[in-house]
Amino acid sequence: MRIILVGATGTIGKAVAGLLGSEHDLVPVAHRSGEHRVDLADRTSIEALFRQLGSFDALICAAGLAKFGTMSELSDQDYELGLFNKLMGQVNLVRIGRSYINDYGSFTLTSGVLSQHPMIGSSSISMINSGVEGFVRAAALELDRGVRINAVSPPWVKETLIAMGKESTQGLPADKVAVAYQASMERNLSGKILYARDFA
Amino acid sequence: MRIILVGATGTIGKAVAGLLGSEHDLVPVAHRSGEHRVDLADRTSIEALFRQLGSFDALICAAGLAKFGTMSELSDQDYELGLFNKLMGQVNLVRIGRSYINDYGSFTLTSGVLSQHPMIGSSSISMINSGVEGFVRAAALELDRGVRINAVSPPWVKETLIAMGKESTQGLPADKVAVAYQASMERNLSGKILYARDFA
Repeated sequence: MRIILVGATGTIGKAVAGLLGSEHDLVPVAHRSGEHRVDLADRTSIEALFRQLGSFDALICAAGLAKFGTMSELSDQDYELGLFNKLMGQVNLVRIGRSYINDYGSFTLTSGVLSQHPMIGSSSISMINSGVEGFVRAAALELDRGVRINAVSPPWVKETLIAMGKESTQGLPADKVAVAYQASMERNLSGKILYARDFA
Repeated sequence: MRIILVGATGTIGKAVAGLLGSEHDLVPVAHRSGEHRVDLADRTSIEALFRQLGSFDALICAAGLAKFGTMSELSDQDYELGLFNKLMGQVNLVRIGRSYINDYGSFTLTSGVLSQHPMIGSSSISMINSGVEGFVRAAALELDRGVRINAVSPPWVKETLIAMGKESTQGLPADKVAVAYQASMERNLSGKILYARDFA
């Protein structure tokens, strides 16, 4: 399968590439490095990406920015970062990419644990992740030609916690998180939120 | 209690006013009519509203625009309508209103059945309603002074179905939907999604 992997240089993206790269024709896409780049917040950048890459069998997005911070700390612009990057960026990958995806292809977006299990400081990210999940449930009903769509909801990733200098024993290693992306792509599921711990 | 009711002229808003108006000091707010007006999509309009109204005990929002239509039909602007009106409009009522709300006050926002039960044409509204729910779950953790926040998720409202010329026997009458808003305000609940059918 030809798989477009958006966010290929991130912690989860690298693990997904490690899991799927040997068996598939994986096209890595990143924001600021490599041959294929995309700015999720810029619709024209997404359109250019698909024009450049042409048809594909699966799109996995493990990218998207949103700002962590309390309501007192977050500005309008901080909320808008999440709305236009992690939320509409991923939505636009589907809106535009569905003209390029092959029959029986799949989209896999990324939400996150804060959607259902918030913490102080997550009001924007929880809103964005929940929005991704709501979109996925609905978009699944409109995709035709056997095309599917799911969201993976990763828990806190072990490598991310370590990079943040936080206690990491409860984190799930990125290579285990990657298995949920594989499941979304390979199993006959659509409109589902895949909690990565259930697949690890 | 002094209750600010945003969306007082709508189908649900009128029913909420009917249920709560006799017992409370209800301040009706609408978009285009009446003494107190607000444009949810305009942050400065929300700021002006709170400056004008001052302190309050409860805010109920039964307003917010989002566009129904398939992914093929919806434009970028259609998605942005929901993002800036029903989603960030309600979020901004909380972000700004929390400086004006009295101790032990409550915010009640509105999501909707399409969050969890999508249909063809609901990709934007499902995304927006889910986003409202994610925000509410998280914001509850940050509100202090005993202030609470919930979202009411109304099912299809009988009067709305009739107005749309649709089969309405499965719809819930607006006066039954209103009971969930009363429950959010009066019961010791926070961070919850109240499914209006459960309170009818």
